[in-house]
Amino acid sequence: MSFIQYEQNCDFPIQNLPYGVFSTTENPQHRIGVAIGDQVLDLSVVKELFHGPHLTECRDVFDQPVLNGLMALGPPVWKEARQTLQRILSADEGVLRDNVELRAKAFVPQSSAIMHLPVKIGDYTDFYSSIHHATNVGTMFRGKENALMPNWKHLPVGYHGRASSVVISGTPIRRPCGQTRADESQPPVFGPCKLMDFELEMAFFTGPGNNLSEAIPISKAQDHIFGMVLMNDWSARDIQKWEYVPLGPFLGKNMGTSISPWVVTMEALAAFTIPNHPQDPKPLPYLQHEDNFNFDINLAAAISAEGTNGPAMVSRTNFKYMYWTMKQQLAHHTVTGCNMNPGDLLASGTISGQTDDSLGSMLELCWKGTREVDLGSGIKRKFLKDGDEVVITGYCQGDGYRVGFGSCTGKVLPAVNPFQ
Amino acid sequence: MSFIQYEQNCDFPIQNLPYGVFSTTENPQHRIGVAIGDQVLDLSVVKELFHGPHLTECRDVFDQPVLNGLMALGPPVWKEARQTLQRILSADEGVLRDNVELRAKAFVPQSSAIMHLPVKIGDYTDFYSSIHHATNVGTMFRGKENALMPNWKHLPVGYHGRASSVVISGTPIRRPCGQTRADESQPPVFGPCKLMDFELEMAFFTGPGNNLSEAIPISKAQDHIFGMVLMNDWSARDIQKWEYVPLGPFLGKNMGTSISPWVVTMEALAAFTIPNHPQDPKPLPYLQHEDNFNFDINLAAAISAEGTNGPAMVSRTNFKYMYWTMKQQLAHHTVTGCNMNPGDLLASGTISGQTDDSLGSMLELCWKGTREVDLGSGIKRKFLKDGDEVVITGYCQGDGYRVGFGSCTGKVLPAVNPFQ
Repeated sequence: MSFIQYEQNCDFPIQNLPYGVFSTTENPQHRIGVAIGDQVLDLSVVKELFHGPHLTECRDVFDQPVLNGLMALGPPVWKEARQTLQRILSADEGVLRDNVELRAKAFVPQSSAIMHLPVKIGDYTDFYSSIHHATNVGTMFRGKENALMPNWKHLPVGYHGRASSVVISGTPIRRPCGQTRADESQPPVFGPCKLMDFELEMAFFTGPGNNLSEAIPISKAQDHIFGMVLMNDWSARDIQKWEYVPLGPFLGKNMGTSISPWVVTMEALAAFTIPNHPQDPKPLPYLQHEDNFNFDINLAAAISAEGTNGPAMVSRTNFKYMYWTMKQQLAHHTVTGCNMNPGDLLASGTISGQTDDSLGSMLELCWKGTREVDLGSGIKRKFLKDGDEVVITGYCQGDGYRVGFGSCTGKVLPAVNPFQ
Repeated sequence: MSFIQYEQNCDFPIQNLPYGVFSTTENPQHRIGVAIGDQVLDLSVVKELFHGPHLTECRDVFDQPVLNGLMALGPPVWKEARQTLQRILSADEGVLRDNVELRAKAFVPQSSAIMHLPVKIGDYTDFYSSIHHATNVGTMFRGKENALMPNWKHLPVGYHGRASSVVISGTPIRRPCGQTRADESQPPVFGPCKLMDFELEMAFFTGPGNNLSEAIPISKAQDHIFGMVLMNDWSARDIQKWEYVPLGPFLGKNMGTSISPWVVTMEALAAFTIPNHPQDPKPLPYLQHEDNFNFDINLAAAISAEGTNGPAMVSRTNFKYMYWTMKQQLAHHTVTGCNMNPGDLLASGTISGQTDDSLGSMLELCWKGTREVDLGSGIKRKFLKDGDEVVITGYCQGDGYRVGFGSCTGKVLPAVNPFQ
């Protein structure tokens, strides 16, 4: 129980305590905050209260404008920070609760907080680890028999994404113009993307990095995973389709990738650990771990379109459908010696369930344009139209509380031809 | 003519003046230098001499430990910096030449300089723009009829690479361990890469960036290109082959990517501009430019192997074989609104010529393992062995002088199984 009041279905109870970076109109400086109820606790104001054995020496990380410093410190420090936060926010502890002056400075209503990218992202990797998504897309483009490529169950397939175009939730996404070839008998054309899509994903931020040429073994992977966010990996399907052979997705993905502002720590998620997805064949030893590192996170995507009565839920899915765990992704990514830095972003790939209402992209929901998605009020969609706002949400359901992620939103703006 | 003496075939005459970042044993601070002859001019020492209209206000960029600040300033400032450098290094100008005390502080022999990554690289993109290379690789894997994918002549195919694993020339490269499947009838195996390769490439650094959702039109692309380096994009062919479908190269490339330390500016290269590669079909308007932006840069790769009499030249090629210009690459990369930041790295892809002795990778030189490359002293290679050092060099030949790139080197270290 915290002295900060909140409802039972609040995303940010004392069991959560996610980190973010915010500013206010009055104080434009980017600073680190923790969400509690409908408030933000400004850590730059209360950093003196972190006087445990670890943080006494390094609490200047709470003066930084990004979380990379905190992420670099590793699990013992993260644990101490969480213990301190849970203590000073507890209903039983007076240090903040009873200090009227400090409270006034330390808390900012979330409604007044302007959220920013929480991390300076060095590199961003996108995996492709949801078996239903990979099977769906493979079935559409190669048929049911060849849906999964031969490597898919042997390693977590992934690719390097564009770090510069990762943006914070709420940033509008401009429909891109680009080169496409809808008709294979004709030359390609230039113009606005016609198959604009979202991808419901989650992503994790790395903690301490590793040196080049040194792998992170799977037995140590957990120590390098700080926490998770929601992600929308916007996709221009027509641009992607024409460009991606043989080197993979490129411009079809880099007009923007949205992430939710609050980084939910792995400690907060630990209570929602569930058995890993069965893996057959058994992966190679460097990808094997016995402990459970899958998570029961309810995910949903809604679309708010002009002319409808508010957001229409188009998908309900769950992080638990991931075939590969985050430990496996990180161990695989570094096994060749690739170096991670604190605050690198590793995403799940689109997360789809087995049913038609649990698919994580319009490509799957409209099954490559063969069916329509109902948004209510007579409005239907295959792909996204200008003005559509996509809202991705996620939470873990505890006994009488939730550990939530807030939301990851973005609205599609009309294309602007850059040459007119 | 400079008051600093050098030979006619020196890579770093007064016509070149490339920028790099160095330190010395006595002063471990990373600082910006300019190569002249066999010396480095320390710009942090002589920055007061930059008192033109632009740099008077912003010469603190010469106090930075990386070139990103200078790169962000744009062509008018770059031009003024070059003019100042050419003046103060000229044989006719006494300000440095005659100031014994300042000269002693300002010049460091290149032999004493420890070179570092010149730039904090935000994002790294690798193109695939050499037509002979793309044709060779396509022929090997898909046959002559289908060598080039349908998109290849319509857009500069590229992919996002890993920025964290870009290293400075001289850094040893550890042979990676990873997952491969040499025998398609058997499960994949884990172990050291057996098909270790180099890729002879060049790369450019971006200058001022663009905002997300705003393209850099090809007419303005030149203002966003600062200068070039040599690159070796080390490749684990067997790891790459198994992992890369359908999302492109990933771990097969991120055990290290080496670049040469001196960034040769586009102003220094301007004298070596030659006609662009013919393009048929004519690309879409957003990729068209009339002016020449191809460059006559002689490139070579040599391998120094144990048991040979020094480095053996294995390839002589030229940057001029690029089908797509750097302007086209940059315009394409940003046409969907992808944002560049100063100091982003965009590479050419492997550069191969038309003849068997002008191929930019072992994969092509040994033609997928069907022939051997002679290193002399009875030593032959298909792919790289442990201890092999690859030396990539490049220069433009002027009338009585060269504008050179120095070298990009790296030695293959034996694999270390991370789990033993």
